Amino acid sequence: MKIAFQTPRRVMSAFALSSAAIIVFSMTDANTQSPPPPPQSLDVPARTLPVPETVSPEMRRLIGAPLSGNWNAWPKTVEEWKKVSAPGGGRGLPALRERFKVKTEATTVNGVAAFLITPENVPPENRNRLLVHIHGGCYVLQGGEAATTEAIYMAGFGHFKVLSVDYRRPPEFPYPAALDDSVAVWKGALKMADPGNMAIFGTSAGGALTLSTVLRARQEKLPLPAAIAPGTPMSDLTRTGDSFHTNHMVDNVLVAADGRCDAMARLYANGHDLKDPMLPPLYGDMSGFPPALLTTGTRDLLLSNTVRVHRKLRQAGVEAELHVYEGQSHAHYMRDAEAPETREAFEEIAKFFKKHLGK
Amino acid sequence: MKIAFQTPRRVMSAFALSSAAIIVFSMTDANTQSPPPPPQSLDVPARTLPVPETVSPEMRRLIGAPLSGNWNAWPKTVEEWKKVSAPGGGRGLPALRERFKVKTEATTVNGVAAFLITPENVPPENRNRLLVHIHGGCYVLQGGEAATTEAIYMAGFGHFKVLSVDYRRPPEFPYPAALDDSVAVWKGALKMADPGNMAIFGTSAGGALTLSTVLRARQEKLPLPAAIAPGTPMSDLTRTGDSFHTNHMVDNVLVAADGRCDAMARLYANGHDLKDPMLPPLYGDMSGFPPALLTTGTRDLLLSNTVRVHRKLRQAGVEAELHVYEGQSHAHYMRDAEAPETREAFEEIAKFFKKHLGK
Repeated sequence: MKIAFQTPRRVMSAFALSSAAIIVFSMTDANTQSPPPPPQSLDVPARTLPVPETVSPEMRRLIGAPLSGNWNAWPKTVEEWKKVSAPGGGRGLPALRERFKVKTEATTVNGVAAFLITPENVPPENRNRLLVHIHGGCYVLQGGEAATTEAIYMAGFGHFKVLSVDYRRPPEFPYPAALDDSVAVWKGALKMADPGNMAIFGTSAGGALTLSTVLRARQEKLPLPAAIAPGTPMSDLTRTGDSFHTNHMVDNVLVAADGRCDAMARLYANGHDLKDPMLPPLYGDMSGFPPALLTTGTRDLLLSNTVRVHRKLRQAGVEAELHVYEGQSHAHYMRDAEAPETREAFEEIAKFFKKHLGK
Repeated sequence: MKIAFQTPRRVMSAFALSSAAIIVFSMTDANTQSPPPPPQSLDVPARTLPVPETVSPEMRRLIGAPLSGNWNAWPKTVEEWKKVSAPGGGRGLPALRERFKVKTEATTVNGVAAFLITPENVPPENRNRLLVHIHGGCYVLQGGEAATTEAIYMAGFGHFKVLSVDYRRPPEFPYPAALDDSVAVWKGALKMADPGNMAIFGTSAGGALTLSTVLRARQEKLPLPAAIAPGTPMSDLTRTGDSFHTNHMVDNVLVAADGRCDAMARLYANGHDLKDPMLPPLYGDMSGFPPALLTTGTRDLLLSNTVRVHRKLRQAGVEAELHVYEGQSHAHYMRDAEAPETREAFEEIAKFFKKHLGK
């Protein structure tokens, strides 16, 4: 019996107490398991989901909201698409800026429209840091100042300066316009701060664009950011991902794989190969990526496509954190500035950035 | 306009290009959002879940297996329970030991039955390290040598020495026997290796016992392990947790919240308060816990109760990692030694232990 613990004498005396019980099991028994049946799909009955009681009252209201009213309706003509895609002013932004004590300035960076969000008080450790934000909205929505809600949360909870990309959108500007604009802003940002002091983040389409921007930056041999935080990224546009099925009509925001958001993503793809990693980043090589933090919820239609990115990053040897919030559907963590879960999610990202960004 | 980037002159020139576009938005618009409706439960229709194609063939077989045949059947008499609870020899253990090149010795540590699993070759960095394993099985099953399967995986994939606790089980030995035995083995282990070189891990009931053992060790002012890895822990026995509803009849192992495993947990609880943290650890104070790695799957009935532990640890300031595997039901990551996902899960834990354990 070979034992090499730190305190072998004590070990031996512990074992001596029970020497009669020591049995070295036979190594010769046959494995008697019979071959398993072939895989088969699973029929799941209807069910009623109560709203979890362990989340905050604010999150209970979000989780307990009915299915998004327009999840399966979308424009049929270019003119109708243009209306949906038009830049918006956002809802309640002035109050949000006041609540978080930040200001917003519209600007242009390297030829691309953007917004700079600056906290009233930037702590010394964040003075030389800059975050680049790529907004979500299924590649079509949230243009204009509406893009800045998540950027305001990040600036407010994390006390960072945030540069939010107001990328061009379909129907006029399909793939690769949004990615081109994001990369252009990244190039512009490289003149504004040291890449070691910068991160890129965004949710949904913005999460996918965060990942694809890193893929393109690496391809173009640009410096990479010191960290990224893709939230519930639209990382796979081929409707592949188990939670498209398990969370079908459970996620009250996206609702189903073949809904409005999918139609928008296809408008953006414009016939381009849906497995080109510059479009859905899950098909890209993620080796050499910067440290990444991923956020999702247990009811998120993109739960699988978030955890699949996490696994792919880990398999590539990348430092990657996963945060999954109880009961939340797609991007619920950025819906209510007053929900403690919103603070929690953004403070996790801020903590991660502070750990990985230089000063 | 106050800007303090690292290269302010370049910033200013970037902005100068677009000075005409700079708008500081008004801070006075009213927030026009109407109050949201009260939370309501959600009716989810029946659906058919295909087996995901992005997982390995081995995992496809596990995911594509029908619902566990006996999920809603359990003994009604003490004598029947005794049969279910009796120690077992495990299935295919000799072949498993041969495959992983480990040996198993039955022993007694501090008066408690245990098994010591030792790899044929222990690398120098692991010579003074020791892992304590607390097996799963809904507190009732997997006694005897059957307890060692997960310990063999960990010893094999991570090349660690593993001491697996063969705790006493109901119906003869309800709460707190399993916890008493786990704590007793931890005390014994403290005489075998330095706590800074040790970790505790386990799955399901073993994940809950891992967490409760740390709670008790802290209460008794014992040294804590350097890391823990509770896999899909039975952290809440009150049937609270959103995935009890969302993954109802989706998880093909546990199947439903009020199934066989729940009946076994209640047999173990034996009328004891189901919110006593020494029973379901989610109700305990986790501040000061050692770094923790949590593992679950997107179809796991305990997905919520794994992410809730993760959040609780993070809220307490504990370094805690979460790993969620695509399509997996409860503890699928330890069902097939040949599935690449099994290797992936255990190598993640091994990597975590190697990072946090002294040598």
